[in-house]
Amino acid sequence: MERVLIKDLKDHIGEDVKVAGWVSAVRDHGKVAFIVPRDRTGTVQAVASADYNDTALPESQKLREQWVVEIVGEVKGRPEKMRKDELNGELELGIKEVKVLSEAAELPFDIETELNQDTYLDNLPLTLRRDRARRTFALQATILKAFRQTLNGNGFTEFQAPAIVGGDAEGGADVFKLEYFKDCTAYLASSPQLYKQMMTGVFERVFATTKVFRAEKSATTRHLSEYTSIDFEMAFINDHRDVMEMLTKVIKGIVSAVEAEHKETLNDFGVELPLVPNEIPFMKLSEAQEIIKSETGEDCTGEPDLEPSHEKFLCKYAKETLGSDFIFITHYPVNKRPFYTYEDEEDKGFTKSFDLLFRGVEIVSGGQRVHNYDELVQKIKDKGLKPEAFEFYLQAFKYGLPPHGGIGMGLERLTEKFLGIGNVREASLFPRDMNRIDTLLSK
Amino acid sequence: MERVLIKDLKDHIGEDVKVAGWVSAVRDHGKVAFIVPRDRTGTVQAVASADYNDTALPESQKLREQWVVEIVGEVKGRPEKMRKDELNGELELGIKEVKVLSEAAELPFDIETELNQDTYLDNLPLTLRRDRARRTFALQATILKAFRQTLNGNGFTEFQAPAIVGGDAEGGADVFKLEYFKDCTAYLASSPQLYKQMMTGVFERVFATTKVFRAEKSATTRHLSEYTSIDFEMAFINDHRDVMEMLTKVIKGIVSAVEAEHKETLNDFGVELPLVPNEIPFMKLSEAQEIIKSETGEDCTGEPDLEPSHEKFLCKYAKETLGSDFIFITHYPVNKRPFYTYEDEEDKGFTKSFDLLFRGVEIVSGGQRVHNYDELVQKIKDKGLKPEAFEFYLQAFKYGLPPHGGIGMGLERLTEKFLGIGNVREASLFPRDMNRIDTLLSK
Repeated sequence: MERVLIKDLKDHIGEDVKVAGWVSAVRDHGKVAFIVPRDRTGTVQAVASADYNDTALPESQKLREQWVVEIVGEVKGRPEKMRKDELNGELELGIKEVKVLSEAAELPFDIETELNQDTYLDNLPLTLRRDRARRTFALQATILKAFRQTLNGNGFTEFQAPAIVGGDAEGGADVFKLEYFKDCTAYLASSPQLYKQMMTGVFERVFATTKVFRAEKSATTRHLSEYTSIDFEMAFINDHRDVMEMLTKVIKGIVSAVEAEHKETLNDFGVELPLVPNEIPFMKLSEAQEIIKSETGEDCTGEPDLEPSHEKFLCKYAKETLGSDFIFITHYPVNKRPFYTYEDEEDKGFTKSFDLLFRGVEIVSGGQRVHNYDELVQKIKDKGLKPEAFEFYLQAFKYGLPPHGGIGMGLERLTEKFLGIGNVREASLFPRDMNRIDTLLSK
Repeated sequence: MERVLIKDLKDHIGEDVKVAGWVSAVRDHGKVAFIVPRDRTGTVQAVASADYNDTALPESQKLREQWVVEIVGEVKGRPEKMRKDELNGELELGIKEVKVLSEAAELPFDIETELNQDTYLDNLPLTLRRDRARRTFALQATILKAFRQTLNGNGFTEFQAPAIVGGDAEGGADVFKLEYFKDCTAYLASSPQLYKQMMTGVFERVFATTKVFRAEKSATTRHLSEYTSIDFEMAFINDHRDVMEMLTKVIKGIVSAVEAEHKETLNDFGVELPLVPNEIPFMKLSEAQEIIKSETGEDCTGEPDLEPSHEKFLCKYAKETLGSDFIFITHYPVNKRPFYTYEDEEDKGFTKSFDLLFRGVEIVSGGQRVHNYDELVQKIKDKGLKPEAFEFYLQAFKYGLPPHGGIGMGLERLTEKFLGIGNVREASLFPRDMNRIDTLLSK
């Protein structure tokens, strides 16, 4: 007998079918036992009693949570008054045969209960089966799919950015070192930035979903040792606003896909679908600082960056005043941005860069990049870096690169903010930080 | 004026348009100059002469290869006898204005010429612009897209497998070590295997496209320090044949997508679209060895694995005799396969595993996995490994995992074999090996 997916049972009322999945609940009432098998598509109530089959009852009574079973049974419509407004709420499965594919040890805790974070993380192979975790990572997969779909539809080509890099050219303190064969040291990439710029010379429009690595000695709710960076870069732009426009399309694509596929998840997490107007509001950093000053009395004008509290305020302001869960802040000062950032000719000292803020934090950083070779070499020197260390990358510019720009965002942070999870560790399947790689590290 | 993509020029005959791209050729005949701009969609012949515009001619004569330009011109149909059977062969662009967006230094070599490998690799930001390289990596992007599309259409969920792992549990000699914060050592993952098995407990059917790392002290045409592993794993299978069936769907999806989007590339590379029958032929290792013996006289029966020459022979045999560019070889012996491989109850000592051979080499390894906890612990011990080292992973089995199996394949090797490139380095955008990370490593 072919297996039927649990979500499709409604098409088989009156028939005998086989379902397969994990036992997510067992309620034994003696003469009748209720078993709730779960497969990747959902759950159904299965009933074992003498009404359906004699031998199925004792077999069903042996089952325990997380046992893996095949159940053959008859799909029966429920009486009108017994129906529930949920998947398979209108039917039940009358158990005729139970086959155990795998037993499970007794669970160390109720997996659907509130767990402290270390317990959750120590037991991921089990706790990822929680409804909350499954919903989180199903949504994360949708975000990625929608990201790629929008970009593929706009002439972008995916590329594979390297994880191992030869130098720590940007001089970041937070880079992991690697023993690379005999006598060599290599590093783990902290961003695909330089490679995606080179790739605009090949395909004009490129994107990548790449693991990147940060050796940040910080165990806050925001930091991970490795995360998935989702990036795009596009050539032949007029300025950073073309990038913001493409990013708006990407965000809209993600929000639509989440709306189509994860409405129930948003409900369960008690969060709303983000508001994305046709044009996401944008303002210069200096304008944002004026608004903060006039609205809150706090004077941060002239500061080179926003404090976390300012980002929170601006998101609240954008939502209440401008009807958007997203807001672009542009024109960060040259000295706060990396060497490749394009300076605005009409606003000297400030860059054609932006951050996209969402629900209180920056989720995207982007902007136009310097494309002129001589200017880029000078910018590298201005930051106290050595052009020789960038020789490979600089070839792209030496041999003609168009005006270009792009963005990078962290998949885990975006997922976290979408669902209001509050901790990026729960938006990373197998999070690594300074204290943990799967299990806690012993020092 | 809005930019028009070069592939769309045919829709603008008689109109003035703006195109943008790289100069891929300049032919200056004095009173007339031919410029061939290239954008991501193709090339067009642009003509500067007094016929079209007086000042455009001297401006055009200044252009050099790889300069980045915007050209405004009139799209003119060519006389019947001057038409060519290629993109824009029926038209030319009469140049009215030229704007240089970026100049390029004089090229060190003709980028479309045959290059030795070190020259090619030393100059990737330039040499990736070669037609051959662009075609290779555009096809690679299509392979990935088709891989994901087939699996998404069959109920699979994408997940992010970690790159940093805590232990070298499988005891491979070829694993990269990492300084992980103070006093800790971590490793780079050589496969997402253990994680994808855990994930079948969460989503049943999962896939990942993950960077994996091998510290192989080998500089052959087959080895890379990092490559993109494309993997799927599925639960509730009957045996390895369900996995082979899904893999066949994936391969068919890839071949169809390549046929739809890259026919010209196959022509240019002088290779044919692979033959994939509805059922890819399969045979046990022992049967394959009998065929090799009877067809070639070479007796390899009883050997635990195939030699490269045998793989080549079997591919030739499958193509000529069975009408397939692919062939599955199943039932490798237990001692040649990893601990998690499922032993065939009806063929003791041999496993429900398979390799998929394509054009002379193994491109996929897969099979059914052990799902029973006690049996898995025993298999770990049998291989001389320590179950304690697998404690995190083993939780998935302790708490109930269904029969499952899956595959892993290297994106670069598949790309290479599709195009008959002959060296995996040219199927990896920025290849890393023991001698090179972008530039040659100085020892």
